[in-house]
Amino acid sequence: MNGSAEYLEIAERALEEVLPAAGSRPAELSDAMRYAVGAGGKRIRPLVCIASAVAAGGRAEDARYPAAAIELLHNYTLIHDDLPAMDNDVERRGQPTVWKKFGEADAILAGDALQALAFSVAAKAPRNAAAVVAALGAAGVGVVEGQVEDVAKGKDAAYVYLHKTADLFVAAAEMGALAAGAAEGHVAALREYARNLGLAFQYEDDLIDGDGAFPPEETARLVESHTAAALAALEGLPGDTGFLSELANRLKGRTK
Amino acid sequence: MNGSAEYLEIAERALEEVLPAAGSRPAELSDAMRYAVGAGGKRIRPLVCIASAVAAGGRAEDARYPAAAIELLHNYTLIHDDLPAMDNDVERRGQPTVWKKFGEADAILAGDALQALAFSVAAKAPRNAAAVVAALGAAGVGVVEGQVEDVAKGKDAAYVYLHKTADLFVAAAEMGALAAGAAEGHVAALREYARNLGLAFQYEDDLIDGDGAFPPEETARLVESHTAAALAALEGLPGDTGFLSELANRLKGRTK
Repeated sequence: MNGSAEYLEIAERALEEVLPAAGSRPAELSDAMRYAVGAGGKRIRPLVCIASAVAAGGRAEDARYPAAAIELLHNYTLIHDDLPAMDNDVERRGQPTVWKKFGEADAILAGDALQALAFSVAAKAPRNAAAVVAALGAAGVGVVEGQVEDVAKGKDAAYVYLHKTADLFVAAAEMGALAAGAAEGHVAALREYARNLGLAFQYEDDLIDGDGAFPPEETARLVESHTAAALAALEGLPGDTGFLSELANRLKGRTK
Repeated sequence: MNGSAEYLEIAERALEEVLPAAGSRPAELSDAMRYAVGAGGKRIRPLVCIASAVAAGGRAEDARYPAAAIELLHNYTLIHDDLPAMDNDVERRGQPTVWKKFGEADAILAGDALQALAFSVAAKAPRNAAAVVAALGAAGVGVVEGQVEDVAKGKDAAYVYLHKTADLFVAAAEMGALAAGAAEGHVAALREYARNLGLAFQYEDDLIDGDGAFPPEETARLVESHTAAALAALEGLPGDTGFLSELANRLKGRTK
């Protein structure tokens, strides 16, 4: 996709810069943190973050620290979601989960440290650093609210999707736009894009997995309508929106 | 102590403002977060934070959000330390621990949400907000490093004390000073005060509990030397250092 190789390299470089060096003290912690973040993944949230800086008229490099921050936060949530007291998953992306490999205590602590590091890194944004941190903080609380509702009896699926999935996309876009010094209206447009992208992404997942909260026909309509809304939100942005529009369009017909 | 009633009221008011309202959605989460933070405690870190703003020549109110932030972060670490996979404690301050009362999953998640909230709140500091967040982030990583080392075989007690205990005091002082717009040299002096206060506090605990890393005579000398160093660091600050010096002096002869 438009710019994706360049954006991916920026994100990977920033992650390597901010993660503790391999074997640094205490090694149990740095090893677990590096294992969790280095274990692959498509880096879709950092790419959205960087592409949002560009779409707002800024430079891709403006968003390097926000991009690393959102990926660190996302990976901490995966570590904690996999814990025995939560989903009790033993494998992720074809590898043992962090708790399975490092033990439960170090998995809890590695997640905790990754969350703290995420905020330290967000604070390095070259513009609007306090607002960048606030955006990440809102997503950090929201994603937990979504997770708690997800395991509650009689859960509200729309609430879960909005918070557990969409909040991180919204923060990614907002942080990238803010770090690029975007105008308020452009930040709002990119938030709207990302909320719809996140929801389309979630409903598409439901279609692929065949286990959604709504019947397949309704779910397919939701993918269409949120994709259309995401694309519409990109109109009028001053920078290159090629990556973001391709990303929304590729969601349709995606297979795992 | 000098100012402590006023400072405590500022800290409690800020905490009440930033915590989710009782019963707010999802209620399992807001209840657990409020239970953890409201369960008493001496609020010593928020008091140090506010008193550092004053010692640096600022107003106590300047530090209200940083003070709330450091207490939120401290309380999240207590929730996670108490978990079955960690210390497996069932009681704290005479009440059931969060996991014992709300279950393990909600305890992990309430801790996670409190950490995210801590950073959101730190970002509201009226001055130097990005640096305030960075100080909290350094402590957030440091406290985990200390905890990992604490449960490691052949642990280094000095390293554990510096990170698990002192880092939060250092961040409290630094955040308060930064929020008050303190000069660089005054921020450094308050960090030095707080590092020594935190270590004196820890060695005093060891003396009281009788289970320290060093023999009692050496531990008592360490309390003395760190208390003296803390007091010396306060020389030359432009504001009222009464609270901070009384706090350091009261550590000597403290009983639980």
